[in-house]
Amino acid sequence: MQAKKPIILKGTRDFDAVQISQRNYIFDTVRQVYQQYGFSPLETPALEHLATLTGQYGQEGEQLIFKILNSGDFLAGVDRRSITADYKVLLPQIAEKGLRYDLTVPLMRYVAMHSHQLTFPFRRYQIQPVWRADRPQKGRYREFYQCDADIVGTPSLVCEAEILAMAYQVLQQLGIRHFSIQLNHRAILQGLVTLIGKADKENEFCMAIDKLDKVGRERVLEELESKGFPPAALEQLNFIFELPETNQDKLEMLNGYLGQVEVALKGLQETQQILQYIAALGLEDMPITLEPTLARGLTYYTGAVFEVKMHNFNVGSVGGGGRYDNLTDRFGVPGLTGVGFSLGVDRIYAVMEEQNLFPAYSAVTTQVMLTNMDSEAEQLALRIITQLRMQGIKAELYPEQGKLKKQLNYANKKNIPFVVIIGTEEKAAGKFTLKDMHTGTQQLYTLAELIAKLK
Amino acid sequence: MQAKKPIILKGTRDFDAVQISQRNYIFDTVRQVYQQYGFSPLETPALEHLATLTGQYGQEGEQLIFKILNSGDFLAGVDRRSITADYKVLLPQIAEKGLRYDLTVPLMRYVAMHSHQLTFPFRRYQIQPVWRADRPQKGRYREFYQCDADIVGTPSLVCEAEILAMAYQVLQQLGIRHFSIQLNHRAILQGLVTLIGKADKENEFCMAIDKLDKVGRERVLEELESKGFPPAALEQLNFIFELPETNQDKLEMLNGYLGQVEVALKGLQETQQILQYIAALGLEDMPITLEPTLARGLTYYTGAVFEVKMHNFNVGSVGGGGRYDNLTDRFGVPGLTGVGFSLGVDRIYAVMEEQNLFPAYSAVTTQVMLTNMDSEAEQLALRIITQLRMQGIKAELYPEQGKLKKQLNYANKKNIPFVVIIGTEEKAAGKFTLKDMHTGTQQLYTLAELIAKLK
Repeated sequence: MQAKKPIILKGTRDFDAVQISQRNYIFDTVRQVYQQYGFSPLETPALEHLATLTGQYGQEGEQLIFKILNSGDFLAGVDRRSITADYKVLLPQIAEKGLRYDLTVPLMRYVAMHSHQLTFPFRRYQIQPVWRADRPQKGRYREFYQCDADIVGTPSLVCEAEILAMAYQVLQQLGIRHFSIQLNHRAILQGLVTLIGKADKENEFCMAIDKLDKVGRERVLEELESKGFPPAALEQLNFIFELPETNQDKLEMLNGYLGQVEVALKGLQETQQILQYIAALGLEDMPITLEPTLARGLTYYTGAVFEVKMHNFNVGSVGGGGRYDNLTDRFGVPGLTGVGFSLGVDRIYAVMEEQNLFPAYSAVTTQVMLTNMDSEAEQLALRIITQLRMQGIKAELYPEQGKLKKQLNYANKKNIPFVVIIGTEEKAAGKFTLKDMHTGTQQLYTLAELIAKLK
Repeated sequence: MQAKKPIILKGTRDFDAVQISQRNYIFDTVRQVYQQYGFSPLETPALEHLATLTGQYGQEGEQLIFKILNSGDFLAGVDRRSITADYKVLLPQIAEKGLRYDLTVPLMRYVAMHSHQLTFPFRRYQIQPVWRADRPQKGRYREFYQCDADIVGTPSLVCEAEILAMAYQVLQQLGIRHFSIQLNHRAILQGLVTLIGKADKENEFCMAIDKLDKVGRERVLEELESKGFPPAALEQLNFIFELPETNQDKLEMLNGYLGQVEVALKGLQETQQILQYIAALGLEDMPITLEPTLARGLTYYTGAVFEVKMHNFNVGSVGGGGRYDNLTDRFGVPGLTGVGFSLGVDRIYAVMEEQNLFPAYSAVTTQVMLTNMDSEAEQLALRIITQLRMQGIKAELYPEQGKLKKQLNYANKKNIPFVVIIGTEEKAAGKFTLKDMHTGTQQLYTLAELIAKLK
C-alpha cells in the first residue's frame, strides 16, 4: 500500500496543549460572566435535519452549510433521470442532514420542541463549534467556536442592555482594550431609506452601508449609486457620515432628521431606552456608541443590532447580535421574540495574542518524571508513583530503561520541571534524588519529603 | 410558509443545564486522572479528509463514516456515466470529507504530520465527540463523546499497566463499583486457533468468541462449527471455558496448553509482565482479570487488548483499548507502536445514573433574581445588579415590570434560591427584602448586608 501524506483539512486546525489552555482561558471567562448574568448552558448536536437548517441564512449562507450524504446506498430510490440533471435537483434526494451552521437556529429548534416545558423568558448560553463551507483564508476557518447568549420570550429592552453590558464585561475580564460596542436599530436603517424615498431598497442599502468602516464613505456611495440610489437622494444622507461625538448628540441629530419618518420612531425610542438602561447599570467606562450605519448581515434581525469592533486591528468584529422576532414561527410556535449575542473565539484569540493578554504559560504538563534505570529501580518507581498521584501530583515514569541523559532530555523537551532519580545510592539510602530541571540543583529526600516538596 | 415540526435528528441529543453539569462531572474527573498520569490534551477537527479516515475500520466500520457532500456543484466534473452506476462509484467523486469516527485515526494523522517535532514517547489525551452513521437504538447514539489516552512510540509494557491502572482510577474516582477490567493478548488468541489447527481462521474465531459473555458457550460453539471449525478441534478448547479463579492459575493453565505453540509465547510472557507491573503499582483492589476469550473488534490491535465490563448491568463495555503497531505506516511514518484506551462517556453516564452516583444537583443556575415592580424599582435594581455580579454572584433582573406573583413563580420554576424584592417600603428604607425561596422567610438588608449574605 502506498503511503498517503498525512494532511489536515484546509480551514481546520489541531490544538495542542498550550493552545487548548489558552482557549480554555477564554471559554472559562466567557462562561463565568455569562453565568453571572443568569444564563444557563445548553448543548445541541452537531448534526441537524437539513430542513431545520435551511430557509434561515439566505441563499449565500445556505450554500455554506455542510451537507451529509445519506448513509448506505444513497442512490436507491432516487429518480435516475434527476441524477443527470442539475445538482440542485439531486441534492435533496441524497442529503437530508447538515452540520450546525450557527447556534441560533438550533436554539430555535430546541425552544420550539420544548416550548411547553421551558420557563420564559428563557436565558441560555451555548459554547460549541459551528461549521461553514467557506473558502479558507487567513483568520477564516471552516470549523470554529461561537459563544452565544440569548434571552427568548420577552420584548423587554432591559435584555438588550444586559447583553451589551455582558459583552463588555467579558472583554474587560479578558483584558481586551481599544474596542467599541456599536449599537443601531433596524428601524433607524428603515427610516434612513424611507427618508430618501427608497424604502423598497432597504436590503441593498444595508449591504452597502455595512461596509463603511472597511471601504470608506466614497466607495459606499459609489456602490449605492450603482444600485440605483440617485446622487441627490444620497446627499440627504450626508449627516450620517458627520455625526457628533456623544450618543446623546447623535440621537438628537437623528431625531431632527428622522423625527417625521414614522418607521424610524420605534428605533429612535428603543435606542434611547437601551442607552438609558445601560447608564443605569453603572458601567461607566463601557464604550458604547450609537452607529446608524451598522447593519449586520443576518436578515433575521428586527430590532436593535450591535457589534463589537476593535480599533486599529483588522480582525472584523469580535462579536455581535441583535433582536429577532418570530424565529420559531416556522416551527409552529408563533409570537416569540428574542435577543442574542455571539462572541467569536478565534478573533478574540487573535486579539489576545496581539495584545499579549494570555496569562503566563499554563499548559497542562507533567510535574515530575521518574527515571527508569534498571528493573529494580523501575519496581521502586512504580510503587511510589501511585502514591504521588494519590496526592494529586501529575507524575509519569519514563517507560523504557536506558541512559539517564536520554531520559533527562525527554523531561527537558517536555518542560517537566522536576525529575526523580533512583540510582544505586538512592536505593541504598532508601531515598530519592529530586532534580530541579530549571536550576539544575539536586537534593536527596525521603518519600514523605518528596511529596511535601512537590505538592 | 407551512410550519415544519421541530425535530431533532434520531440518535442525537440536546443537553440541558442539569445534564451538562453531570457530564462535566465525568469529563472533569477523567481529565484530572489522565493528567495525573502525565497525559497532555490534544484536540483535532471534526472534519477530516476521507482518505485519512478510510482503510482503517474494516468494511463495516467504513460504512458508518458520515460523508460530507462536496460544496457547490458537486456534480461538476463528474463523469456522467458513473452517475447512473453503483453509488460506490459515484461516492468518491462527490464526497471527499468525513466526520471523525474515532479519536485514534486523527491521532495517527497528527503524529505523522508532526513526527519530527514531537517528543516521544508521546502521551496525549483527547476528549471529543465522534460520529457514526449507526442505526440509532437505546443507548446507541450517532454523536457521542470518547475520552482517549494513548502513549505512542514505545513498546514498554509499563504503558499497558499504567493505562489499565488509570482506567481503574477514573472509575474508582467516579464511585463506580461492580466492574472488572479484562485483559487478553492477540498472540494468545492466535495461539488458541493455532492449537486447534485453524491458524488461518483467526478472524472468524475472534468474532465468535468475543460474544461469549453475551450469548453463552453453546451458541459460540455453534457459530464456530457453522464457520467450519470441526467439533473435535473445538473440544480441545474446553479449558478456556473452565478457567480457574486467579490470574496466576489461569496463566499457568494457559502455559500448560499453549506453552508449545510458538505464536502464543509472546502473548503469555507479555501478559505475565503486564500483571507484574500492575502489582508493582500497588493498587490492591484493582479488579483485573485475564480473559483469554476477549478479542475486541478493532482489527488494528496487535498486542494486549483490554476492556472494562460492568457486572449485572447490560451496558456493554464502558471502555477498552489495546496495543497497535505501525498505525502511522500508511502516512509514511513507519515503526511506531502505541497503546491506548478509550472511555465511553454515555455508558459511564448510564451506569452512574443507575448506581445513583452523581453529586447532588449542581447545575448552573442564577443565585438571585431581582424583582421588577415599576420603573423606579427597575432603575434601582439595575444599579445594584452590577454590584452583585462584580462580587461574582449570579444574578438576573426579571426583565418585565408586572405582578410579583408571576415573577416569584418564574424564580420558583427556575430553582432560583433567592429573590430580592424592591417595593415601596424598601425604597423608602433604602434597603432590600431578601426572600429565601426554600423556606419562604424574608428579611430586610442593606446592599452591603445583601452581598455578604449571598456570597
